[in-house]
Amino acid sequence: MTVQTPSPDTALAETMLDMGARARAASRALGRLGPDDRTRGLKAIAAAIRTAAPAILEANKQDMDAARKKGLSDAMLDRLALDAARVDGIASGVDAIAGLPDPLGRELARWQQPNGLDFARVAVPLGVIGIIYESRPNVTADAGTLCLRSGNAAILRCGSESTHSSHALVDAMHAALEAEGLPADAIQLVGTTDRAAVGHMLSGLDGQVDVIVPRGGRSLVERVQKDARVPVIGHLEGLCHMYVDGAADPQKAVDLVVNAKMRRTGVCGSLETLLIDAAVADTLLPGIASALVEAGCELRGDARARAIVPGMKTATEEDWGTEYLAPILAIAVVDGLDGALAHIERWSSGHTDSIVTEDKDVAERFLARVDSAIVLHNASTQFADGGEFGFGAEIGIATGRIHARGPVGAEQLTIYKYVVRGTGQTRP
Amino acid sequence: MTVQTPSPDTALAETMLDMGARARAASRALGRLGPDDRTRGLKAIAAAIRTAAPAILEANKQDMDAARKKGLSDAMLDRLALDAARVDGIASGVDAIAGLPDPLGRELARWQQPNGLDFARVAVPLGVIGIIYESRPNVTADAGTLCLRSGNAAILRCGSESTHSSHALVDAMHAALEAEGLPADAIQLVGTTDRAAVGHMLSGLDGQVDVIVPRGGRSLVERVQKDARVPVIGHLEGLCHMYVDGAADPQKAVDLVVNAKMRRTGVCGSLETLLIDAAVADTLLPGIASALVEAGCELRGDARARAIVPGMKTATEEDWGTEYLAPILAIAVVDGLDGALAHIERWSSGHTDSIVTEDKDVAERFLARVDSAIVLHNASTQFADGGEFGFGAEIGIATGRIHARGPVGAEQLTIYKYVVRGTGQTRP
Repeated sequence: MTVQTPSPDTALAETMLDMGARARAASRALGRLGPDDRTRGLKAIAAAIRTAAPAILEANKQDMDAARKKGLSDAMLDRLALDAARVDGIASGVDAIAGLPDPLGRELARWQQPNGLDFARVAVPLGVIGIIYESRPNVTADAGTLCLRSGNAAILRCGSESTHSSHALVDAMHAALEAEGLPADAIQLVGTTDRAAVGHMLSGLDGQVDVIVPRGGRSLVERVQKDARVPVIGHLEGLCHMYVDGAADPQKAVDLVVNAKMRRTGVCGSLETLLIDAAVADTLLPGIASALVEAGCELRGDARARAIVPGMKTATEEDWGTEYLAPILAIAVVDGLDGALAHIERWSSGHTDSIVTEDKDVAERFLARVDSAIVLHNASTQFADGGEFGFGAEIGIATGRIHARGPVGAEQLTIYKYVVRGTGQTRP
Repeated sequence: MTVQTPSPDTALAETMLDMGARARAASRALGRLGPDDRTRGLKAIAAAIRTAAPAILEANKQDMDAARKKGLSDAMLDRLALDAARVDGIASGVDAIAGLPDPLGRELARWQQPNGLDFARVAVPLGVIGIIYESRPNVTADAGTLCLRSGNAAILRCGSESTHSSHALVDAMHAALEAEGLPADAIQLVGTTDRAAVGHMLSGLDGQVDVIVPRGGRSLVERVQKDARVPVIGHLEGLCHMYVDGAADPQKAVDLVVNAKMRRTGVCGSLETLLIDAAVADTLLPGIASALVEAGCELRGDARARAIVPGMKTATEEDWGTEYLAPILAIAVVDGLDGALAHIERWSSGHTDSIVTEDKDVAERFLARVDSAIVLHNASTQFADGGEFGFGAEIGIATGRIHARGPVGAEQLTIYKYVVRGTGQTRP
């Protein structure tokens, strides 16, 4: 008799397939629960995270030590770091998700046909969601519990930097689910930091993963786009524009541009290109520019902008296509609404674009014509956020064109089925 | 100076990329139209198809001659064949699509946040849809015009058998669009029968294809699943079940089973497995079985079914997993609702499943628990059809779990954007 030792690859494949099968079973078990069960589980998870705070902080210390040894940047270290307040914030986030309306079982439409058949379109979970993300440990709790709220089983793959913190968080979540008699496999964390595990998730784990949600930078997104064999609800770039129209209120223009660019420069809803109507560029651009510079922003302008504000660097074609995620702003002077629409059609990533104007007709034309997930009138692009939309929490901002666009909250993690009630109808 | 002749592959790639770019431009032009423009275009297309009937029939004769030479089956020839009545039927289908409510611009939700921001979720087109289908020429008109109704540009790839018929139909559609001053590139047909063209479509044509809709058999679906780099709204199997419960009305049970299986056996909503409650199998199965045999159906039963109706063939595991699309039915005796649910959970393809019972509680438990795109109570599985749902027309039945499940009509070919109206709000 020969005993074969499985290779590490085979062992990983088996582990991942087993996770998929357990996620599917958990998703079916979740389907039999009522909304109150899910709420009870979520509240228990929030409490368990608070109780486990010492263990979570201890685990985070291990991650931080390793990250410092690896020489991670201060920005990365800050994203990874937890303290008592942050752990409490994570628990409060879960409490907020527990308080969201349950998105399942909603009757989205109902109608009758002449033959007497009664049709209902009813919200149901997507099934099993694979979430691949980077360093922030809070995503482990946010994503896992948002899936639970929407009746989905989650397979989480955190970045290697946050592996100890994420395991500690998942341990707390499991303890809560088990204590409440709910399926602990509803929230699973991939145990290995082996990057091959991501490949298995992208392959769909033999049909057991219904959708992949990537949360991360360009290299992750590109890998997911290339290798995923299952649907992806993903996020590409947030190359956001603000168009200051000839009929803009001058003070609103300054306030909105500065807020859109500088409130936080590293978020996907931050402004990357300012378009200003030639009709008012002479009068408005100098004030906007000095407010930006005062706030610490580097400006890069086209020739017309630089003719008005001479100090700027030159913006090249590359600038129009760059998501800086930094205190840098590209500025172009355009000829009215049509000029703005042409620039946006050419360069926008379809994430979030805004117009500043007091002319309602111009605003409505902008809102109708710009084909981005989020279009705004007289409001900062930084409102591109599920919390600001009133969704309570989000798993990301979708930039694809199917299933969901914009903030992906609990409702967007559902789909529907048709329930047809008859009295014996046969089809002629 | 060296002149390089492009290789056929390069030439095809360029042709396909050009189609993609023109489709994107047409989709943007469609976005500027109002619902009445789309309706006008659709009515003109219906009229143009009627006018072009002689040319369409002549082209179809070429396809039929070639198909006979290739030795296509009678069933395939019947799907391909057009006559005056069928062409008129295609035109009437387009008229019906013209009469559908326009799905664009609908306000799907609207709400205000405490800071005064006003949010609207508004229906918009998906963009550019690639449709890959097999022999039936009517799909050329159905798919093209359903995309036009929903504001999407269509890139159509027909089966090689129907290429002349499809070109004649598209010529008529183009003539109508041009006469109405609408973008003819909104409906494009891939000009070559080269299978490599499908590969280009699946690659997304450099970001110009937003979604692929495959309509065809298993080999097409498998290729699309393997190679698509863009989202797919697709259709796998219709492995449909009907569960005859202990509380079923005997006559309804016979009528529904016979209709679900035998009305048309080649459609995805046809019944493939009958599950019957052990409590009534002795009394009801003989009558159901003889009605099916009389209608020309072959029966394959498990041991318990064969003990009741001895003439049947033996059903193996393979039968539970087979979409026959033929006058064959697999039959299993199960122990009540739980037995039926377990069988369906194991074997259903998630397309359409039905229960026959007079017990409303049992029915509601079945409708809640079976996680298929369409679940029915006391109605035939053959109602799995967009027309029967009142959608007017469909591009297929989706068996995936994101974006759309069940019949995909004009409404399902849309997505949404968020329109946010403010008065100068900045984010704190």
